[in-house]
Amino acid sequence: MNICTYSYEEFLHLVKSFHGTLAPGLLIGGFMVDLAMKNLPDGELFDAICETPVCLPDAVQILTPCTIGNGWLSVVPFGKFAVTLYEKYSGRGVRVYLDTEKLNNWPEIRDWYLKKKKKQDQDSEKLFGQIKEAGHGLLSLQKVQVEPEKVRRKKMGPVAVCPVCQEAYPTRDGDKCRSCQGDTPYSDIVSVSASK
Amino acid sequence: MNICTYSYEEFLHLVKSFHGTLAPGLLIGGFMVDLAMKNLPDGELFDAICETPVCLPDAVQILTPCTIGNGWLSVVPFGKFAVTLYEKYSGRGVRVYLDTEKLNNWPEIRDWYLKKKKKQDQDSEKLFGQIKEAGHGLLSLQKVQVEPEKVRRKKMGPVAVCPVCQEAYPTRDGDKCRSCQGDTPYSDIVSVSASK
Repeated sequence: MNICTYSYEEFLHLVKSFHGTLAPGLLIGGFMVDLAMKNLPDGELFDAICETPVCLPDAVQILTPCTIGNGWLSVVPFGKFAVTLYEKYSGRGVRVYLDTEKLNNWPEIRDWYLKKKKKQDQDSEKLFGQIKEAGHGLLSLQKVQVEPEKVRRKKMGPVAVCPVCQEAYPTRDGDKCRSCQGDTPYSDIVSVSASK
Repeated sequence: MNICTYSYEEFLHLVKSFHGTLAPGLLIGGFMVDLAMKNLPDGELFDAICETPVCLPDAVQILTPCTIGNGWLSVVPFGKFAVTLYEKYSGRGVRVYLDTEKLNNWPEIRDWYLKKKKKQDQDSEKLFGQIKEAGHGLLSLQKVQVEPEKVRRKKMGPVAVCPVCQEAYPTRDGDKCRSCQGDTPYSDIVSVSASK
């Protein structure tokens, strides 16, 4: 049993190292990306979509060339456990999702996934066992036509120096940067000199 | 000269392997994360904010435990080249940004960053040389107080099976999932059986 080019054990090590913990969603995500890779349409360059920011993006980033920073991985906020790989230019793709109709064969996974048990009542050994045993068995596949412009990040366009904070920002945002317009997540900012 | 626990050369290899290309923004991003790590406030657990999805998130994901999938890295869409690491609970943090006032010492970086030259007119050897030479020299530092609830992703809450697509979704989105409400990036979906 492999996850892409890795053995299952190797994949667990990569998950631990990149993600910090062996999250059940990320292990299932590994099987999802593996199944998608084995069912790619023709093409050479593939972009990815995750339909939730939770766990799944890390499976894609560990197993494919697509990352958040290079823009080949997009996240859409549907809260759905599904991943799509699609040919960059044509948009032809394959979508893998966790199929709720198949969940009854794996009650520990079902109860975790549908939040039927509190965390302290979960049997994590059983859960991890069922995930490994189920493999692709939980998943279903669809062919999809992606409209890339709906998911791909926009080009930044021209930049200017913000008259308030003196940092560069995209002029599409207006006459000052969004942070200085009040969107800032910082309630207090103080310049300091650095230790190096 | 190190980037966190890596030599500069080792960091270049990690960038190539994770991000696919030696993007200038990601190399500068390495120095930014390094400088932030060297100036952390007291604390044990740190979350990260990138103020652009471009390149910088990959520097954070390569060099810190914070990833998109584990939720410890948030991206705010300000189009600004800045990274913040902050103590998870208190919100006390350090923000590193590319300081436009320091850019004049490094004309090739300035012209790339402020988009003063077309890509084909850039001298990439000179650009990479100046990035390595500049190191922390382009950067400035601020102490910030983060309001974590403004950046951290929301808990998913209760889930249900969508009556249209039969997949699980967060009930906060309404009586069917957002995709079935019409937000879908797919124009065509066909179920297929998988090759394994």
